[in-house]
Amino acid sequence: MLVDGEERKSLWFEENALHLIDQRKLPFEYEIFVARNVEEVAFAIENMVVRGAPAIGVAAAYGVVLGKDLDESIERLKKTRPTANDLFYALDYMKKEIENGRDALNAAMDYEKRILRSCKKIGEYGEKLIEDGASILTHCNAGALATIDYGTALAPLREAHRRGKKFFVYVDETRPRMQGALTAWELQQEGIDYCLIADNAAGYYMSKGEIDLVIVGADRIASNGDVANKIGTYEKAVIAKENNIPFYVAAPASTIDRSIKSGMEIVIEERGEEELKEKWGCRILPDWIKVKNPAFDITPSKYITGYITDEGIKKEI
Amino acid sequence: MLVDGEERKSLWFEENALHLIDQRKLPFEYEIFVARNVEEVAFAIENMVVRGAPAIGVAAAYGVVLGKDLDESIERLKKTRPTANDLFYALDYMKKEIENGRDALNAAMDYEKRILRSCKKIGEYGEKLIEDGASILTHCNAGALATIDYGTALAPLREAHRRGKKFFVYVDETRPRMQGALTAWELQQEGIDYCLIADNAAGYYMSKGEIDLVIVGADRIASNGDVANKIGTYEKAVIAKENNIPFYVAAPASTIDRSIKSGMEIVIEERGEEELKEKWGCRILPDWIKVKNPAFDITPSKYITGYITDEGIKKEI
Repeated sequence: MLVDGEERKSLWFEENALHLIDQRKLPFEYEIFVARNVEEVAFAIENMVVRGAPAIGVAAAYGVVLGKDLDESIERLKKTRPTANDLFYALDYMKKEIENGRDALNAAMDYEKRILRSCKKIGEYGEKLIEDGASILTHCNAGALATIDYGTALAPLREAHRRGKKFFVYVDETRPRMQGALTAWELQQEGIDYCLIADNAAGYYMSKGEIDLVIVGADRIASNGDVANKIGTYEKAVIAKENNIPFYVAAPASTIDRSIKSGMEIVIEERGEEELKEKWGCRILPDWIKVKNPAFDITPSKYITGYITDEGIKKEI
Repeated sequence: MLVDGEERKSLWFEENALHLIDQRKLPFEYEIFVARNVEEVAFAIENMVVRGAPAIGVAAAYGVVLGKDLDESIERLKKTRPTANDLFYALDYMKKEIENGRDALNAAMDYEKRILRSCKKIGEYGEKLIEDGASILTHCNAGALATIDYGTALAPLREAHRRGKKFFVYVDETRPRMQGALTAWELQQEGIDYCLIADNAAGYYMSKGEIDLVIVGADRIASNGDVANKIGTYEKAVIAKENNIPFYVAAPASTIDRSIKSGMEIVIEERGEEELKEKWGCRILPDWIKVKNPAFDITPSKYITGYITDEGIKKEI
């Protein structure tokens, strides 16, 4: 991804530490967070210094590298966030590789490479869906920040842009954490046309015929194709279907959880109320207001037109 | 409505000035804005010191009282906001009454009384829809703040609460202006159980079967029953229908515009980008982010179960 015109990744391992673009500070400040041990990596995942299912997986893999005791490290990292499948996928992979005598850093670097390769493939397959002059809606940030580079939902946009296609992106703000601002930051850096809208406005633009395609990422995909993704994804999928707009989910294989049959089995994380009440150190809702804050929802497969994977675009997962 | 345990109205005319609860300051501060001339009333409407279609209508009626030249006053007030029908309805009423020799203050007070009576009736008819133990979703603020007293969407809830029914209210935050915080403030003052949620979470709770009924207000209703209301209303209506949840629109007769056939003819106001980027004096999105901010959307009548009016609950308007 481009940051001030230079190619960067959203996290990298260097001098025996994990370096991460601090996503709590973006899009206001560009800062690097350095994690030197398992606990600091766990902190980074729990507090969303790093977020996005594939990036969480890679961060966890490097977290294992920084740990002293393999089982303790994995136990600690598993407890950070419940919904993203990539976290468990990456930890299972690391455990297996290390128990088979593999060097931990080497295994983690391989895991990262697989994710990068998958995202690049997703971009190449997915860009075929983007017609010149199209308008595309995306929700949350399934960009390079969420996946080390390229993105999942944003990979096809990056690829189409590099091939010279012209298109416009509607970016859902994505309350409460406003990850849409991260997507806006990425698109601005790439020079892709976009505008950010309140989540409430997506339906308005869909009903007016101003959106041709929806692409989102995923935190976990069940065997039947149901998708857990950022809260609000379900709403967009239902409204896209109502307006006959294709709705695609872009994800690498690490996001698919074959151990569960349907979305009903996926644990939905409830996060703290400060996410709604505070924004960049500023109170935007009073203390006394009672709030609930589910972080994800389940989009049943019947609303999903297809899955953009590293093996191609599939009707079924 | 109750404010610190005392019965209040959201605006009143006193000592030749219009007094309004300043809705830009709530729910953090309770302040009264005093408008002493047409321009100050126009400012109050344009800047959302007062908001909500019925309250805008009443404020405009009192604005005419404060004007020197009838036609100039009406011309100025008509330009404040384009979507709410009540504004034009109230101004037409005032013009006719005054041209017929009626005292302006007397006519405005009568207009206010009609709105109050309508909202009380909406409460009495609508409360029958609320079953003991129900969960109700509402969007934006269609409460006493938006209607002088009682509310439209909130009138049935107030009435049901006063009759001793127990129920729970999910309050959409309603970005960008977060009028859900005003609804939370009203419910908290009345002692009604509620929680505020990100707009994105409404579909999640609907899909989980945790919402039994949706009630919203309206800014304008076309002859065919299409409803212009706060941005996001359309999304909630589509998702309610998808989940077989009754979706009701509560509104007084002043909101119905018989001069237009369908929602297609309603002008949707686009508001400034600061509404998204700033909240209570704090930057929540950077300057450089491009945004669009439509303030309303159109909900086609096919998604609306019924209309709670001052003449009863109707299937068609």
